[in-house]
This record gives sequence, C-alpha cells and structure tokens, in this order.
Amino acid sequence: MATLQGNAVVAQSGGPTTVINASACGVIQETLRHDAIREVFGANNGILGIVQEDLFDLRAESADTIEGLKRTPSAAIGSCRYKLGDDRGKYQRILEVFRAHDVRYFFYIGGNDSMDTADKLNKLAADERYELHVIGVPKTIDNDLVATDHCPGYGSVAKFLATSVMEAGRDNEAMYTFDTVTILEAMGRNTGWIAAACGLARRDENDAPHLIYVPEVPFHLDRFVEDVRGVLRRLGRAFIVASEGLADEAGTYVTAQAGRFATDAFGHTQLGGVADLLQRVVEQEIGVKCRYNKLGTNQRNAMHFASRTDSDEAYLCGREAVRRAMAGATGFMVTLLRESDAPYCCSTGSAPLAEVANGVKKLPRDFMDAPGTHITDALRRYAGPLLRGEVPIRIAADGLPDFIRFRRRPVPKKLPAFEA
Amino acid sequence: MATLQGNAVVAQSGGPTTVINASACGVIQETLRHDAIREVFGANNGILGIVQEDLFDLRAESADTIEGLKRTPSAAIGSCRYKLGDDRGKYQRILEVFRAHDVRYFFYIGGNDSMDTADKLNKLAADERYELHVIGVPKTIDNDLVATDHCPGYGSVAKFLATSVMEAGRDNEAMYTFDTVTILEAMGRNTGWIAAACGLARRDENDAPHLIYVPEVPFHLDRFVEDVRGVLRRLGRAFIVASEGLADEAGTYVTAQAGRFATDAFGHTQLGGVADLLQRVVEQEIGVKCRYNKLGTNQRNAMHFASRTDSDEAYLCGREAVRRAMAGATGFMVTLLRESDAPYCCSTGSAPLAEVANGVKKLPRDFMDAPGTHITDALRRYAGPLLRGEVPIRIAADGLPDFIRFRRRPVPKKLPAFEA
Repeated sequence: MATLQGNAVVAQSGGPTTVINASACGVIQETLRHDAIREVFGANNGILGIVQEDLFDLRAESADTIEGLKRTPSAAIGSCRYKLGDDRGKYQRILEVFRAHDVRYFFYIGGNDSMDTADKLNKLAADERYELHVIGVPKTIDNDLVATDHCPGYGSVAKFLATSVMEAGRDNEAMYTFDTVTILEAMGRNTGWIAAACGLARRDENDAPHLIYVPEVPFHLDRFVEDVRGVLRRLGRAFIVASEGLADEAGTYVTAQAGRFATDAFGHTQLGGVADLLQRVVEQEIGVKCRYNKLGTNQRNAMHFASRTDSDEAYLCGREAVRRAMAGATGFMVTLLRESDAPYCCSTGSAPLAEVANGVKKLPRDFMDAPGTHITDALRRYAGPLLRGEVPIRIAADGLPDFIRFRRRPVPKKLPAFEA
Repeated sequence: MATLQGNAVVAQSGGPTTVINASACGVIQETLRHDAIREVFGANNGILGIVQEDLFDLRAESADTIEGLKRTPSAAIGSCRYKLGDDRGKYQRILEVFRAHDVRYFFYIGGNDSMDTADKLNKLAADERYELHVIGVPKTIDNDLVATDHCPGYGSVAKFLATSVMEAGRDNEAMYTFDTVTILEAMGRNTGWIAAACGLARRDENDAPHLIYVPEVPFHLDRFVEDVRGVLRRLGRAFIVASEGLADEAGTYVTAQAGRFATDAFGHTQLGGVADLLQRVVEQEIGVKCRYNKLGTNQRNAMHFASRTDSDEAYLCGREAVRRAMAGATGFMVTLLRESDAPYCCSTGSAPLAEVANGVKKLPRDFMDAPGTHITDALRRYAGPLLRGEVPIRIAADGLPDFIRFRRRPVPKKLPAFEA
C-alpha cells in the first residue's frame, strides 16, 4: 500500500502543560522526515483554529524555533476549551477545512475531551470516505487518561509541586511559632494524582506534607480538623496538600464557585476555593494562623524545573504518533507502557480513541494509606520515576528564561467564514 | 586593642528567604577563621530562642552541612515573628542569656524590626557595660531597608516571580479564548519592589505582565477596570501583577474598599486577598473569565531557581558582618553599595542600626511609568542585575532537591526558664 500523500495539522487542546510543546516538537520534527507529508500546519487556538480555518505554516518556522519547543512551556501553537459536543455540523466543517487544505494527517495533543473529538472526527471521515489519519497524543497534568501507564505533563507538575512542598515546607518549619499551618492547593478536578505526587516530598515522617487530601477519598470537614489537630499535637506545625476537587461521598464539592462562571464549556464545575476555605476552617476551629499557597497555572508551566523523563516521553509520544500514522494507523492515541519500575523503562503502544475518550483513571485507593491522608509505597513506585532528571533551559543575558515564539505565517483561507 | 574573646550567636528573623541561609553560611564559615570566637550558637526560632535560652551548637554541625546552607531555602536555624517592642525586661533577659554563655558576638540576620531589636540590645549592653558586638545582616524579600542599595533575598524572589510571570503568561497567551485574564499576587504589604520586578518578564509590549499594581501608586477599582478593558481591547487577554498591599491615597487597603465586591452571591462577606477580590471584579464588571495565582511562601523559598548574584551577596554580607565585628565594630548593619550598573559591581559598607530600624525604602515613583501600571528603565537598570546567574543545587536520586537540616545539638541551659 502506498503511503497517503497530503498535509498535516497539529493542534493542542485544553489546559497547557510544561511539556505539551515537547510533544509538538516530536510531531513536527518527525513529519519533516517523511516525504508523504508535504505541508504542516499549526491550528491557532486549538480546535477552534481548525473550525475557523485559522492555520499557520509550521514549515516556515526555523529549525531552532522547532527545537526550542522543548524548552518552552504552555501551548505554543495555541489552545482553547471549546466543546464540539455532538454538533455534527462542526465536525463537517473541520472535514471541509481539511479537504480544502488537503489535510490527511491530524495530530491532536490533548486529554480525554480531545480524544472524544478526535474519535468523532475520525468516524465522520470514514463515513464520508475521506481518507484521514487521526492520531491522538496524550497530554494532561491530571494523569487521568485510561489505557496509558501515565500521561506526559504529569511528571513535570509532580516534580515542581513536590519541590514546592519541600520549599514551602521549610518555611512552615522555620516559622511554625507564627505561621503554624500551611496549605498548598493542587490542581486535580476529579482525581488526586497531582496532590498525591506531593507526598514524594516527604522523605522522613516529620517532612512536609503531613496530610494530603484527594478527591478519591471522601472529605469531611470535622475529620479534617481532627487530622490537623493530631499533626499539631505531634509537631506543633502542619503542612497540608489539598486537591481543588475535594468532595464528600455523594460527590458534592466542598466548595464550588457561585455565579455565572460556575461551569466551563464542558459543564465542569470550576473550582478553586478549597485552600481559602480550609484556611478559614483551621483559623476558626483550631485557632492557629494558617496560610495558603495556590500555584494555579504556574504548576502546569514550570519549565524552569521540568522533569527530563516527562519531557523525553512527551517528545517520544509526538514522534511515535507520526510514525504510526505513516504506517497507516488511524483512530488511536499513543500510549506509554511501563516495562519496569527499577530500572524504569517505558515503551509506546496505542489505544483506540473511543476507549480513552470514555474513561477516567482514578487514583487507586491503595496508592493512599488506610486513613487516606498520605501516600503508600505503591504511589512512590509509580510516580517516583516520572520526576527524574532536569530539562536544560536557555537563560538569556537578563537572567530569565529564553522561550521561543512562532512567527505564525498564516495559511491563506480558502473557505467562507464559519460562525463558531 | 586585643580582639574580644568569647562566643557568638547567630539568629535569623522574620519571613524566610531563599538566601537567608547563605548569609548564615557566610557568618558561620567566617567565625571559624577567627580564634577569638570560640563557640558559635544558633538560636532556635530566632530571637525567641535567645529569650528562652534555646540554643544549639553550630560547631557540632559538619562542614558539609554548613556549606549546604547555600543550597537550602528558608531559615534553617529557625525564625519567628516575635516583637520585643519596648519591653526592657526582655532585652535584659537576652543580655542575661548572653552573659551566662559568654556571648560577645551577636549576628542578627533580619529586616528593620530585627535591626530595631538589635539596636536596642546594643544600647542596653553599652548602658550596662557588657562588652558585646551586635552586627545586623540585611535580609528581606521586600527590599525595603534604607541605607543599602538592595537587600539579600530580593534578587531571588524577583528572579523566580518574573520567571513565573513569563511561564503563566504563556498559559494566558495560549488559553485567552477561555482564561482571558490572569492575576498573579505578589508579596509586599507596604512596598512594590517585588511586584515591580515582575515587570522584567516583559521583553516586548505584548509580553506578560501587561499591568502592575504597587502600593506606592494609589489604587482605585474603577481605574483598574478601565486599565484591564484597555489591555483586552488591544490584545484580547491580560496578565496582571498585583501587590498584596494595594491601597488608595488615604492608605485604605483595597480589600477594605471593596464595597459590593466584598460579599459573594449569597451576601457572605468574602475574606481574603487582593487577587481573589480583583478576580471577582474582573468577572463581574468586565464579564470575562479570570484566574489567579498566589504563590505565597513559595515565592520566598524557590531555591530551585535562585539568583546567583543574590546568593553570593547574601553570603558576602554574612562574612562581612563577622569581619567588621572582629575589627571592633558594633551597632551596625552591613550594607550593599552599588559601584556600577554595567558592568554590575557591588561592595559592602555599613549603616547604624538605628538608621535602618526607623526607615522604610519605598519604590521611587520614577521606577514606575506615568500611569503607574508598568516599570520604567530605571527599575530595569536597578533590578535587572540582581537576577543574574543560577545557584547550583543538589538533586537527589529521587529527582527532588537535597536540602540540609541541622543536627541541633542543644547547648545546656544555665538559667531558670523565662516566661516569654
């Protein structure tokens, strides 16, 4: 079978990560090695850019810029949260754009919502007999994709947040007579993978963090207060990691923002008030001073201290996506398969997009201890290897990082505008 | 004049910094070079440890541990916020502790409250004819000490926060169709030095941060809303840095000005900081989604990306404190004197403790532009050199930093307990 000739689109989707650009680098550099792929387009603002035919020419970027993706955080191509849902018209629009630009390869770097989009697009193309290769590249700091051992993006947020716990933990240790309790709020709407990784900061029992709260373990304020009192009795101080998505058995979030921003485009509840709620609880119920750190989007973009393992695997997933597409695959997401923990060794596999789209991988209960407030060795064995190594970044003369930015030479539009 | 023989106490005070331990390292290593100093004691929990005669033996620590202070954040000796105020009894208690342990050298690493304490202690010792050398070592991320060009601790928070603005700025840039506005809250209750340093992240006019708010420029919510609207019209996104201590002309904190933003949708009073208030203002008044990052104590302990210039100067100030004490000085704080901006060159000087104790160095108005919402080249020339270089840290096999911790061999108590 002759390899399908045509152009490629690379898009990034959803929340950025420290290494999502390493995946893009893997895709782009690999496409250059295959003559069957002629042009490579980036989609401004993720899938929205495809719907709007807002593409730019990645071959117009220098080799240095492409290589520099490995040391640039966030989504350099552009991202969005834009739900296509079941609106068949939007998928048809995408196919129309692809046809207009002879796009035969679509590499979509994202999480399970993106894999759902990719899956529907792949099926529509098959229905319409438009030959298209759709390959997903896993990306999420949340680490909640099924079918893959772990997700690129997770190792770097884990490394940065565990380090942040060590550092702010030392502050709490030095200042406990005044700042007695510190709370660090970790991202993780539905899963506690990120918060749990903070447990790696603890090398001995007096180290921060002393308590970790994850969405998989039902949360109760009165139990929380007792947990904190217990640590204070033992150490006189407490350092707590709390996932943003804490909920009780019924799944009711401990706190959810009120008002018109309560849900995002996917209907996900927007959270973010856990740490300040718990701060008030500690101060009012226990009567000691409590601080909180909410690293927010900084935790998913900390290029200055990224995990080398994570970055290398992100690149590998991108490169592998192209190789599998060139081998004729479509409708799959590249996966990471762990061969062994020690020495750590990982290879790549693939999983059907539909399988990834419909699953959420929760933190296994046995990765947390019996009370559900700290990690077990099972989590250490799993997450430990993902943090290892540092990514060399370039520091400019001003002492700050030197990130790349694309020139973004637009691809001329061929279609009438589409009301997205 | 023969050099005074005796023991030394080293204490750290107030909020930790990334390089306060580098200053302690400078003090401790230099004391080892002078035979006149016999024992060197660390004070657990800062000045509180002296009042409580809670000291430990720094000579019992290994040379590797002492050297490791350079790569360990926060106050490894211990710190506190404990105001002696004008309570003469407490100062006399300190002298009593010093007499009991033949302490003749007191090196106090802290900010202006600490210099006030040191000054009063120095004067009391003179009154009581107890020969004591009291030398202050400057330390504060706030950079608000007078008589010194800048303060150790500032360069590192500046480097980390400016980098954090670059990184989270890229997130805002990639996600602006959804997460349109991002606010980063910077420490600095009374001065805007830290927030202003975030301006160094902007290399071209589209870079984050787009707006910076400092306590030295009176803050008004309506003007803020107009500023943000202006940036949104130009770029479609906005990245804002806000000092935690924003206030109007009368000095009323914005968190108290909030009016209708002070209550949530349920009429509950919203407590909390500047960033979450401004988030609500942006969402309610402008109608776009807004996120905030509050790095909290992580900004003052980011050892994994500290400024080499800052760390080296912190060490230098500690070393110089001992040298000046051995030369007979007392009642002074070591200062940094800038010789030139380019090439950057700094030497040390000294200033009377009383002068430092009573002053607060505000950000000069001409370091901010005419509207007061971004920095000028004067700030760039001033702060730019302080960020340069990186401090090598040690990474353990688990991929996380290797910080030191003291053994803390207690110094036997000789006095009855004191009710602090």
